[in-house]
Amino acid sequence: MTDIISFDPRTGSAVETVASETTPEELERICSAAAEAAEPLQAMGRARRARLLRAMADGLEADREAIVATADRESALGEQRLNGELTRTCYQFRQFADAVEEGSFVEATIDHAGDTPMGPRPDLRRMLVPLGPVAVFGASNFPLAFSVPGGDTAAALAAGCPVVVKAHPAHPATSLRCFDVLVRAAADGGAPEGVLALVHGTRAGADLVRHPAIRAVGFTGSERGGRALFDIASSRPDPVPFYGELGSVNPLVVTPEAARRRGEEIARGVVGSFTLGAGQFCTKPGLVFLPADDAGRKLEELMIGEVTEVPPFVLLTEGIRDAYEAAGTEGLAAQGREASEGWGARARLIATDAADLTEDAVQECFGPVTTVVRYRDESDLRAALERVPASLTATLLSERDEADLRGRVGRALREKAGRLVYDAYPTGVAVTWAMHHGGPWPASTNALHTSVGATSLRRFLRPVAWQGAAPEDLPDELADTPENPLPRRVDGRLEV
Amino acid sequence: MTDIISFDPRTGSAVETVASETTPEELERICSAAAEAAEPLQAMGRARRARLLRAMADGLEADREAIVATADRESALGEQRLNGELTRTCYQFRQFADAVEEGSFVEATIDHAGDTPMGPRPDLRRMLVPLGPVAVFGASNFPLAFSVPGGDTAAALAAGCPVVVKAHPAHPATSLRCFDVLVRAAADGGAPEGVLALVHGTRAGADLVRHPAIRAVGFTGSERGGRALFDIASSRPDPVPFYGELGSVNPLVVTPEAARRRGEEIARGVVGSFTLGAGQFCTKPGLVFLPADDAGRKLEELMIGEVTEVPPFVLLTEGIRDAYEAAGTEGLAAQGREASEGWGARARLIATDAADLTEDAVQECFGPVTTVVRYRDESDLRAALERVPASLTATLLSERDEADLRGRVGRALREKAGRLVYDAYPTGVAVTWAMHHGGPWPASTNALHTSVGATSLRRFLRPVAWQGAAPEDLPDELADTPENPLPRRVDGRLEV
Repeated sequence: MTDIISFDPRTGSAVETVASETTPEELERICSAAAEAAEPLQAMGRARRARLLRAMADGLEADREAIVATADRESALGEQRLNGELTRTCYQFRQFADAVEEGSFVEATIDHAGDTPMGPRPDLRRMLVPLGPVAVFGASNFPLAFSVPGGDTAAALAAGCPVVVKAHPAHPATSLRCFDVLVRAAADGGAPEGVLALVHGTRAGADLVRHPAIRAVGFTGSERGGRALFDIASSRPDPVPFYGELGSVNPLVVTPEAARRRGEEIARGVVGSFTLGAGQFCTKPGLVFLPADDAGRKLEELMIGEVTEVPPFVLLTEGIRDAYEAAGTEGLAAQGREASEGWGARARLIATDAADLTEDAVQECFGPVTTVVRYRDESDLRAALERVPASLTATLLSERDEADLRGRVGRALREKAGRLVYDAYPTGVAVTWAMHHGGPWPASTNALHTSVGATSLRRFLRPVAWQGAAPEDLPDELADTPENPLPRRVDGRLEV
Repeated sequence: MTDIISFDPRTGSAVETVASETTPEELERICSAAAEAAEPLQAMGRARRARLLRAMADGLEADREAIVATADRESALGEQRLNGELTRTCYQFRQFADAVEEGSFVEATIDHAGDTPMGPRPDLRRMLVPLGPVAVFGASNFPLAFSVPGGDTAAALAAGCPVVVKAHPAHPATSLRCFDVLVRAAADGGAPEGVLALVHGTRAGADLVRHPAIRAVGFTGSERGGRALFDIASSRPDPVPFYGELGSVNPLVVTPEAARRRGEEIARGVVGSFTLGAGQFCTKPGLVFLPADDAGRKLEELMIGEVTEVPPFVLLTEGIRDAYEAAGTEGLAAQGREASEGWGARARLIATDAADLTEDAVQECFGPVTTVVRYRDESDLRAALERVPASLTATLLSERDEADLRGRVGRALREKAGRLVYDAYPTGVAVTWAMHHGGPWPASTNALHTSVGATSLRRFLRPVAWQGAAPEDLPDELADTPENPLPRRVDGRLEV
């Protein structure tokens, strides 16, 4: 048995042993319990599931002080940021509760019996039902928003699926504390035992993805780790969907007029965005395209000035720090103030010409670094963008009167990104119905889905159609007069 | 270059050479053209795409006589059935046209800027956009409904994606004839060149799934062939979604009361269903659970009587005929009338006890055969159902006053199927909004999606969010006042 140890990134030293790696026998018990919990969780119905999600949010908030202190000690992200992260997570649980109550996510559809050119049609009713137990892999960089509590866990539970979380080794104590809060709320809310479980260790994680009881996987992390688990999920005898958010370089383009008219504002904005959370955001702008003209050069100078003043950061893990130190620094244009103890790192600005943009430079580098890419003209810019892999976001800073240019570059960026950001920075990810957090590979393993926002529920649901069923055999959502009304499509027409 | 030859199943002999296998160079040109066509096809907008789909339906109907004659000669399915199939396909093209015009499939969502507990939220607008070129693999058993014309092709074009079809070798002449009609309609409708292409040959099919331009794959066929292509799609450097409908045994359960009260009707109905289209329906009931009591035995006797009278069939291909002949006949209870020439086959009824239900018996066997499974009681039945793989459909024939039993068995069946059929037969698949044609593996490679009905569009679309975009940078669907109105979700509320 291997110990799971909690470290302090500010000192780089071990603080406590939190747990042991989950054994195969424990994993078997956990997955069986999750499978057993699936039917009773589904049977709770929408109203009780919504209450359960709200109780989980209440429980997290009631334990806020201790959760944030533990997360800060394990992540060095700072209490302000972590308080914001917890608020966001609770908001997301409550937004899912609203969506579950509203009910449109089940896509209830009724086609009454009738005639068609192919002959008589039977009564058909369709809705989405839970897929079954879901494995969730927490991320290092959002210990409270993409980890034990967070989007994937909340979405799967809202969909009616039991969840087994693989704790991220960067914050095992935070994981355990949050898990205890959520399990208590689940028990108080009458959820079946086994509805939520926590496992530790790399082997347990891989075995979890392989386990027959698991029907889908949510993952946020590196392209390498995500690909390995995706391959396991896809090579099962019965492959299961793997929703991974892997890597993203998030190109940001500054047009010539934007550089000319508001260089100072942009320099401050870009540096603030790429160093937010020590550059450990999946939406960090990692490539900043500037015009290779006077205004662009001035903007680059301003960025260099800003970066030089940036205080040192503490990175999340020794591995992230080591990878950051080992990353290429060719074209280094500026560095932030020197780091001293723990897993510290200095901000970095790299600069290159669009024509020289190499494969390496277009890989995501986790940490407070970005690459300025100077483009000579639109065709130079667009040729370079062709070499950029797909991303979660693409940002365009332009002036209102550059509509033609913006249209052309915007269309090119849209092929490569899940979210187009105009005149703002991509780092913030609002939790709303219209948010999309995903994109073509490698941003997501499956471009069809989002991991943030109300529609992320869709990942954990599958359709079932009932043909010719008697009223007593139909779920309430498909009754002619449902007890809990919801938006539906009846005989082809949406009814709200 | 290998010839692609059209055979006549009624004689088993070659009739004509239709084409050559697609070469790697031809495939490269085809995929490049499909990639080039993606943006102009999308730019056609919903109204023109709807017109295009209707023109394709019109074109198919105008050539009905020749298409049906060719398909009958290549498939031996009979002109009546093939006329019905073509009607169904045209209906599906037109239903997609209606869905494209109605517009709810793009899931347009607008969240205006506002305040949240996490601070101000930007203006966010989200809709689904086409994924890009789609590869479609036609099936042998529906030359007009799941082949060059058919659900996958219509859904991908409706979604705005160019399509490259891999022709099924069982009906190359039908494929080519339909392809010519569709290409002419596309050209007349102003669709970009490259919007639809046809390739031949196994190697070309595998290379197509590997090709970087292809963004998704639709497949209907065998579990072995589907798994091989799924593995190619999943092991690409950039994996793409593979929507395969593979194998399905479609359990059908007759309750004791149903057997007692209407055995004759059920015997006729079941035999009619499992021999429809020579038993070459993916929804064929392959396991028929009967009570092991007097009524059940009587029903089995009636089925034996029915089967004995069934005239011989002609199967679609030599391979299907050979596999049918090689399939196990242990427990053979009855055979239909003897077959003589061509790829003929006799109907078969196999019978076994639930306790003896073996792995082999629960594999799909293509052709006019089903297995009667006698169950002693409910627990015997449910234990046997546990061993049945997931299916497209599960059918329950019961009496209205058996609600408790039906509820319990229905819940067990729901875990294993995409469509629950009550007191009818599963072979028919209506084209409606509420249809679901899919299910957990191996019924589908991805349980989230359907390959029939309006929601099958969803497979070929991905979300994009626009943040802070000016009116001129938004698609019409996301404008404050769209020119072509559509159902949308605005600030969290559905508006129709």
